[in-house]
Amino acid sequence: MSFPVGIVGFTGYSGAEAIRILSHHPDCEPVLLEHRADNAGAKLQKKSPVRRAPATAEGIRAAGIRAVLLATPPEVSMDLTPKFLEAGVIVIDLSGAFRLRTAARYKHWYKEEHTAAELLAEAVYGLPEYNRAQIAGARLISNPGCYPTAANLAIRPLVAAGIVDRAAGIICDAKSGVSGAGRKASLKTSFCEVTENFSAYSILNHRHVPEVLQTSGLEEKEFSFTAQLIPIDRGILETIYFRTLQPMTAAEIVAIYEKQYADEPFVRLYEAGNVPDLQAVRRTNFCDIGVIADPATQRCVVVSAIDNLVKGAAGQAVQNLNLTLGLPETAGLL
Amino acid sequence: MSFPVGIVGFTGYSGAEAIRILSHHPDCEPVLLEHRADNAGAKLQKKSPVRRAPATAEGIRAAGIRAVLLATPPEVSMDLTPKFLEAGVIVIDLSGAFRLRTAARYKHWYKEEHTAAELLAEAVYGLPEYNRAQIAGARLISNPGCYPTAANLAIRPLVAAGIVDRAAGIICDAKSGVSGAGRKASLKTSFCEVTENFSAYSILNHRHVPEVLQTSGLEEKEFSFTAQLIPIDRGILETIYFRTLQPMTAAEIVAIYEKQYADEPFVRLYEAGNVPDLQAVRRTNFCDIGVIADPATQRCVVVSAIDNLVKGAAGQAVQNLNLTLGLPETAGLL
Amino acid sequence: MSFPVGIVGFTGYSGAEAIRILSHHPDCEPVLLEHRADNAGAKLQKKSPVRRAPATAEGIRAAGIRAVLLATPPEVSMDLTPKFLEAGVIVIDLSGAFRLRTAARYKHWYKEEHTAAELLAEAVYGLPEYNRAQIAGARLISNPGCYPTAANLAIRPLVAAGIVDRAAGIICDAKSGVSGAGRKASLKTSFCEVTENFSAYSILNHRHVPEVLQTSGLEEKEFSFTAQLIPIDRGILETIYFRTLQPMTAAEIVAIYEKQYADEPFVRLYEAGNVPDLQAVRRTNFCDIGVIADPATQRCVVVSAIDNLVKGAAGQAVQNLNLTLGLPETAGLL
Amino acid sequence: MSFPVGIVGFTGYSGAEAIRILSHHPDCEPVLLEHRADNAGAKLQKKSPVRRAPATAEGIRAAGIRAVLLATPPEVSMDLTPKFLEAGVIVIDLSGAFRLRTAARYKHWYKEEHTAAELLAEAVYGLPEYNRAQIAGARLISNPGCYPTAANLAIRPLVAAGIVDRAAGIICDAKSGVSGAGRKASLKTSFCEVTENFSAYSILNHRHVPEVLQTSGLEEKEFSFTAQLIPIDRGILETIYFRTLQPMTAAEIVAIYEKQYADEPFVRLYEAGNVPDLQAVRRTNFCDIGVIADPATQRCVVVSAIDNLVKGAAGQAVQNLNLTLGLPETAGLL
Repeated sequence: MSFPVGIVGFTGYSGAEAIRILSHHPDCEPVLLEHRADNAGAKLQKKSPVRRAPATAEGIRAAGIRAVLLATPPEVSMDLTPKFLEAGVIVIDLSGAFRLRTAARYKHWYKEEHTAAELLAEAVYGLPEYNRAQIAGARLISNPGCYPTAANLAIRPLVAAGIVDRAAGIICDAKSGVSGAGRKASLKTSFCEVTENFSAYSILNHRHVPEVLQTSGLEEKEFSFTAQLIPIDRGILETIYFRTLQPMTAAEIVAIYEKQYADEPFVRLYEAGNVPDLQAVRRTNFCDIGVIADPATQRCVVVSAIDNLVKGAAGQAVQNLNLTLGLPETAGLL
Repeated sequence: MSFPVGIVGFTGYSGAEAIRILSHHPDCEPVLLEHRADNAGAKLQKKSPVRRAPATAEGIRAAGIRAVLLATPPEVSMDLTPKFLEAGVIVIDLSGAFRLRTAARYKHWYKEEHTAAELLAEAVYGLPEYNRAQIAGARLISNPGCYPTAANLAIRPLVAAGIVDRAAGIICDAKSGVSGAGRKASLKTSFCEVTENFSAYSILNHRHVPEVLQTSGLEEKEFSFTAQLIPIDRGILETIYFRTLQPMTAAEIVAIYEKQYADEPFVRLYEAGNVPDLQAVRRTNFCDIGVIADPATQRCVVVSAIDNLVKGAAGQAVQNLNLTLGLPETAGLL
Repeated sequence: MSFPVGIVGFTGYSGAEAIRILSHHPDCEPVLLEHRADNAGAKLQKKSPVRRAPATAEGIRAAGIRAVLLATPPEVSMDLTPKFLEAGVIVIDLSGAFRLRTAARYKHWYKEEHTAAELLAEAVYGLPEYNRAQIAGARLISNPGCYPTAANLAIRPLVAAGIVDRAAGIICDAKSGVSGAGRKASLKTSFCEVTENFSAYSILNHRHVPEVLQTSGLEEKEFSFTAQLIPIDRGILETIYFRTLQPMTAAEIVAIYEKQYADEPFVRLYEAGNVPDLQAVRRTNFCDIGVIADPATQRCVVVSAIDNLVKGAAGQAVQNLNLTLGLPETAGLL
Repeated sequence: MSFPVGIVGFTGYSGAEAIRILSHHPDCEPVLLEHRADNAGAKLQKKSPVRRAPATAEGIRAAGIRAVLLATPPEVSMDLTPKFLEAGVIVIDLSGAFRLRTAARYKHWYKEEHTAAELLAEAVYGLPEYNRAQIAGARLISNPGCYPTAANLAIRPLVAAGIVDRAAGIICDAKSGVSGAGRKASLKTSFCEVTENFSAYSILNHRHVPEVLQTSGLEEKEFSFTAQLIPIDRGILETIYFRTLQPMTAAEIVAIYEKQYADEPFVRLYEAGNVPDLQAVRRTNFCDIGVIADPATQRCVVVSAIDNLVKGAAGQAVQNLNLTLGLPETAGLL
């Protein structure tokens, strides 16, 4: 038994990763939903042909599709989501369209009107480690952004445990591979501009910031975020700085994470004093977290690492898909 | 005393390299000639302001310009060259517009009509190692292509010496850094498509082939050429294969090069059995050449390496500029 | 039912890749065989613990091991192979120890005495596309070198079909990612020496040449081979040049390959006029082959691409393992 | 008139960069001082022969040397410095041997005894922007570390101006190219371990921290520092976070820098709201600084960028050399 799962935007990096994962999934079959937004030929192997259908209500019905992953820009997601929901399929949207809770916040951060605001209240934020039950029963899942996934998994347990000196704030210095910028012709992401370089962008005003605030429990004035481009194709590493209210060892802080994530299949913790690098999570759905702390100065550094295309996009989308379809949460992801 | 030298197309990689070289030139001053073909902001340092003028006959007259480097696409070069020549300045064109000897060959390889064909007879091919005298007296110099520069400097002495088994042919397996594709937004040269990759293009039909045939002395059926993209920003390395008519050692072949290039400031020869890599020529105007040979099988491999933006473009253009202005040939280039 | 399969040399890149593949294999379980040759910590995930045992006859018996993969230097392979064969397990050796047919050839190319020469006659060369039946019944399989795998799969059908102008010879310009040099501290493979570089080595005398001669049907004087280092971690692309005895189109040459490889699960052919790049085969067990030809000049270029750690090492070893254990040839490899 | 300047450790990356800079210096001539610590062949061009001499008191006297750059490990610097000072030459040491003010601090951070502690009081910290006068008259100059150079130039004016909320502290998230680790065979800096990766090291306990504290005016508990490895060869970018005591705009903070650095030839400031990337400073002796600030939250981010081999090592050493020899400070560096 195999569930057909549609993918819109399959020519992009997240969409291609979704095809790759679903092609190895024991219970799902990827179906490419063709849409005008596909701006470049997908690199599909001839020997593993994948079914195709039009990205329309009729198309998905005819293909027997149960759920759709939207690896599309927000404006396309806002256009397609109502149509697909009406057609009776589950929608997992990888764009930012349904991540923020109000149309006003969307307009503030994304600089455009929300055209499907009536669905914002219904959309479930697809971070399984915190919203597992709601995801399982949802029609519309908003898949988290890549930066917020790594940030929230690292920050929320600390804030919840009440150990952070919030007056001093939490600083998240984030670095991403270039695929995070999407697959399109752009001088900014051209090889010669990126190689032998390292650059910061959207300092203090990245549109992923409100996602972190919504989930981590921090307030805006307590959180600084910088996004930076590493000359590699994939991976996000976030170096997170804060002070503890009381002197604490790294082991004590790791213990807080262990309590929170003991049963989580996709969060891996490092022994106190050790932190992950990007090769550790490359092409996996894991979020790896490590802690360094100096009780004398009450300073602490947490490093959180994911693959932006997997746990930061297509992998987490499949994790959410598994939950909605009642499949084992790890199916196709280990 | 400093000669003002205009640069059109200064936002591209070759143009930017020309600014860099001329900024350190003891006898020349770069002047940026502004043209609509400039599609992206040049990375100019505020602390080293460079003069600007319009890319018109009036503009170059008012700026007192003596010579112009055209780092522009062929169609822009064909448009500007007649106007600039009429204005009385020397033109050094870095495009392919004036490299082939007839309008018919141009149309065959560049797939468009030549719109300044009356200048083809006058244009001097700017490879100083072979055309020094003509370059010195020319009004219009056609700067060689990057691949042909490395190929011709390696192949011509061998053909001239009559040691090559031309029936078996010469094969040139060429590899280039990504800046050779120019500075523009393109999916093909985007970081994620190039990194962790290596790809061949224009196999057996690259438009640089006729340039090699014109200068090396080979005929079309005797020459195979493949261009390939290395995931680095700059540099061309060509691995050249042929058989000798008689058994020859690498030292004997190096001796042929030494005789030819004894007095050349920008050709460096390696001891027999050694070949250059790309770091050896990076950001220099040198062409490095090394030879490996097996007398028993009469097989020979020559490796030729340049920096595609320097000896393959802006550096060689300045070398030609020095010759036309009566300056020391190496001025600004060592 | 799961076969325990031992891996010696699991801290190297090929060994680590073997662990990765066997961890996902439906019918095998990797067991790490600890040996003094392991010079650096393996990057093993704590959450997927792998069994360990000593790399001795007793160790493999106690662990119930059926077959052993030796991802070790030749001298270690020559030492361990007789012991393991005597212990009754199948040995698949990834080193060059058993690839050449005589001790004299081994000494000539590997510059050391062969210390297990009595096994050379028995060793089967593990290229399934040509030796499937012998592999299935073998005790000792010599896994092919990475360069020869890509070369032989591309060249042998052409030589067998009698279309190559052997007097002019076949030239193989090969490029490899850095993992081909193994995992060890070395200035030559240090980041700053490799990045922004491209370099040739072992020109005309690479120790993989005799492997190509043994299998392709070419004679030494007919074959030129150059190995070159690309600044990427994995992948081999070979650009192969020859002349056809008669004018032939690319489609006619592709047809020769199609006849040979119609039923092969791991050879993929491209449409005439198209060639693979390295991203197409990255982290797969495929060998991709494409053809460009010019009937007018009878010149032909074939591009053959593999992942050096998969089809060029651990993947092909598992393919051979599947054959010897009577499992589906593609198990764990798609 | 040309001053002979000796370089010990010329096979390393900093030493090679010093040769490159001095070869183009109008008033100095590099002389390679041969020492047993040279562990790998320098990549010297045959066409630009450089003089050599033994790295001994006699050797430098015979060569007429006026000043010596030590691009050596601390233990070699502690051994050679007293001998060279006695021989009457100026010593500029690029190691950490003479950067800290006491032997106790040296032992604490470098984990070994200081063997030339009698010179610590005399050594002048070679950061020209703050110690110009002392440098000009010094016999022994301790060239600053790469990370501290970028950090101190960015942090000291802010602390001096009294605008930083020191209770909240300053966080410096630093990233460096791989050449910062020196030129030696090491698995950690091998290509396959670094490429497609990003990793943190020496979190909260890097030996460059005390250098920042000595010069910036911060106390230990006020400063967090993390070093991270970017997969590029050269460049350091530091993202520096703090809160202002009062609401301040980026322009107001840039004005503080402008006042401090108005006449500095090697500090470049960006317009408020803009920050440098690494290509901007590549192969230059500049330190580029940019500011982003949000008055509402009093959060501020400063980005400081240098080339670790130039302003972070050999370039700054030559800047110091110019000062001690009474040459123009920018000679050979623009």
